[in-house]
Amino acid sequence: MDLVRAGPRVRTRVEVSPESLFGPDNLPYGVFAPRGRGHRVGVRLGEHVIDVLALLDDPVFAEPSLNAFLAQGPVRWRAVRDRIREAVEGELDSAAVHPLSDVELRLPVRIGDYVDFYASIDHATNLGRLFRPDGDPLLPNWRHLPVGYHGRAGTVVVSGTEVARPCGQRRSESGAPEFGPSRRLDIEAELGFVIGVGSRLGVPVGIDEFADRVFGVALVNDWSARDIQAWEYQPLGPFLGKSFATSLSPWITPLAALESARIPLPQQSPAPLPYLRGNEAWGLDIDLTVAWNGQPVAHPPYARMYWSPAQMLAHLTANGASTRPGDLYASGTISGPEPDQRGSFIELSWGGSQPIPVNDGQRTFLEDGDEVTITASAPGPRMSRIGLGEVTGRIRPAHTRWAPATER
Amino acid sequence: MDLVRAGPRVRTRVEVSPESLFGPDNLPYGVFAPRGRGHRVGVRLGEHVIDVLALLDDPVFAEPSLNAFLAQGPVRWRAVRDRIREAVEGELDSAAVHPLSDVELRLPVRIGDYVDFYASIDHATNLGRLFRPDGDPLLPNWRHLPVGYHGRAGTVVVSGTEVARPCGQRRSESGAPEFGPSRRLDIEAELGFVIGVGSRLGVPVGIDEFADRVFGVALVNDWSARDIQAWEYQPLGPFLGKSFATSLSPWITPLAALESARIPLPQQSPAPLPYLRGNEAWGLDIDLTVAWNGQPVAHPPYARMYWSPAQMLAHLTANGASTRPGDLYASGTISGPEPDQRGSFIELSWGGSQPIPVNDGQRTFLEDGDEVTITASAPGPRMSRIGLGEVTGRIRPAHTRWAPATER
Repeated sequence: MDLVRAGPRVRTRVEVSPESLFGPDNLPYGVFAPRGRGHRVGVRLGEHVIDVLALLDDPVFAEPSLNAFLAQGPVRWRAVRDRIREAVEGELDSAAVHPLSDVELRLPVRIGDYVDFYASIDHATNLGRLFRPDGDPLLPNWRHLPVGYHGRAGTVVVSGTEVARPCGQRRSESGAPEFGPSRRLDIEAELGFVIGVGSRLGVPVGIDEFADRVFGVALVNDWSARDIQAWEYQPLGPFLGKSFATSLSPWITPLAALESARIPLPQQSPAPLPYLRGNEAWGLDIDLTVAWNGQPVAHPPYARMYWSPAQMLAHLTANGASTRPGDLYASGTISGPEPDQRGSFIELSWGGSQPIPVNDGQRTFLEDGDEVTITASAPGPRMSRIGLGEVTGRIRPAHTRWAPATER
Repeated sequence: MDLVRAGPRVRTRVEVSPESLFGPDNLPYGVFAPRGRGHRVGVRLGEHVIDVLALLDDPVFAEPSLNAFLAQGPVRWRAVRDRIREAVEGELDSAAVHPLSDVELRLPVRIGDYVDFYASIDHATNLGRLFRPDGDPLLPNWRHLPVGYHGRAGTVVVSGTEVARPCGQRRSESGAPEFGPSRRLDIEAELGFVIGVGSRLGVPVGIDEFADRVFGVALVNDWSARDIQAWEYQPLGPFLGKSFATSLSPWITPLAALESARIPLPQQSPAPLPYLRGNEAWGLDIDLTVAWNGQPVAHPPYARMYWSPAQMLAHLTANGASTRPGDLYASGTISGPEPDQRGSFIELSWGGSQPIPVNDGQRTFLEDGDEVTITASAPGPRMSRIGLGEVTGRIRPAHTRWAPATER
């Protein structure tokens, strides 16, 4: 990749290698700050960030989040994408072009509500086998609705943010609860869907409104403390086992960039109820890679997900719940049927019983200092591939205020 | 209560009867719009609203939410309360005084995250008996931690907002799921706690920081569709059975107004872990009344709550979860040991088996057009009583887009 200065007139052409996952067919949106300047909207092109405000004179791009742009709706999204696409194929004002390594990226959206689903049949089956070895691994409702719950919107952090090992209550070996740093700290590799156009209270979103409502897709790592979760989650679901941090990729890939990735859903049996039956296929052929301290340990295939994101949104709003621009809902852990397609360490290590070779050692759950990076790509037009921006995070030790108390 | 015009100089003294629950010892905060003007911060005094911006020259009071004021912290909260208290005992600029009936009240806070706890031992025991008649009514974790989960912040609405009957999946008599308007629409009478000073990611809030972090208390009705909830909630907790609406009173009573209501907690056995042990008593002697179509049907006593709001906040943040000004956490349904102290209709009607006399008829769950109003009061200084602003809502029929489809 080269940045060729086009003469003295400070016009620039950004050259992107044909192998790049971030070529002109992708153009994901993020929020960045050039050195010493305020945050604004940008698109990624190869290893550069293009300042959208410099291309298009609209104050929504001067905001420190994508929310105002998202609220403008799909007609505007298309027009802006076309305009940026056209601009990046020509010469750009060099002041609008920043090397990725020179900018600070922040959380691209201001998230009102965050919902996490549980839409992978292989993941739900694996967890059912681990937690309820004697029963049917899938609970009776699982094939009838996309099971989901609300997470903590205020602790969604941008990729790169360090994650402190959470403390919490867990059951001790004696059966009594104890408090201390989690010993079963895990990841969940997920896809997140960002709502652009909100919906009013009392008015459900129809399943075929998906592409008019949802702006794009991001990568999510929904960090999970399995020991805390196991003790707390009955009967109201996960709470502190999840709420300490959820990492989001800095780049939101618009649905428009994923047209070539659309595939039919896997067969759903029994047929879903009418409000979950759409006319459009919203399966997505996106391949994820989970790297543990730099070493790939899993390749979860989004193509295998049982419930589509259009079904998730129709379900989320079927009771009349309103949505807002910037709301995030995630797929839940993406796992495929093969052992190396599992998107969490509790599955990869089968509940901690089968250590995973990582670098020169072995792991079951995360140790302090470990780093996990999730990347993904999908088919683009003309045999190209589209990359999703990575989501990465490193574990730092538990907060010292509590950590010593746990060992008393 | 009289509004006495104090001569031609447009100075006014607001007279409040000694029996008023909203006298000068209360002064709860809300956000209101005088006729034809924008929203701003006010305090309630008797049947009037005082425009705080007219008393105190600080732009935080010109905001359409309390958030900026809340973020100023407890020293400022105290100073402002003292100043308003002093002002309302004298004469006020009549332009700052508005009859309550003339103003529009809106949601007083911009809520980042909403958490709902399950802190009443009588409520948890009742639900355990109803849902698991053969087992121990309390699950093993219940006496060790305040069980909680995240609700939907975006569907918290101000008192008076109509609530559309939600549609959703429920198990039919044949056992197969069906979709339609909820048939078991219920309330939950709760107290809500509004965070003033947020806390950083990774840094737990100590239990004795409660009064420095939490600004005040509001009434909450956490509407619940029991049939939707019963089918969806395994294994990740309540979702659409709750997320269609949560009603909040328009007035936030500052903790400072509740000093006389503070009482010790009921005995906790076993003793909680150290992070849940505080030096300050944060039991609250607040009596609620639930009225169904104007008829009182229950008197839930907050004094009986097992877990204190200080314990809830310490638990919520024990894993390092951050908080923001305006975050709301609620106690969960408040129920006492007596049948007429139950704060939900599923308890009052014992799962729908014992109809409740309401007006000239009977009820188990809510019918279209029904209205529920929750009020509350607490001891104030000098034998006075402090009122919490009411939370009320009326049920309107399910959205027609879906309702007909359910009967097909």
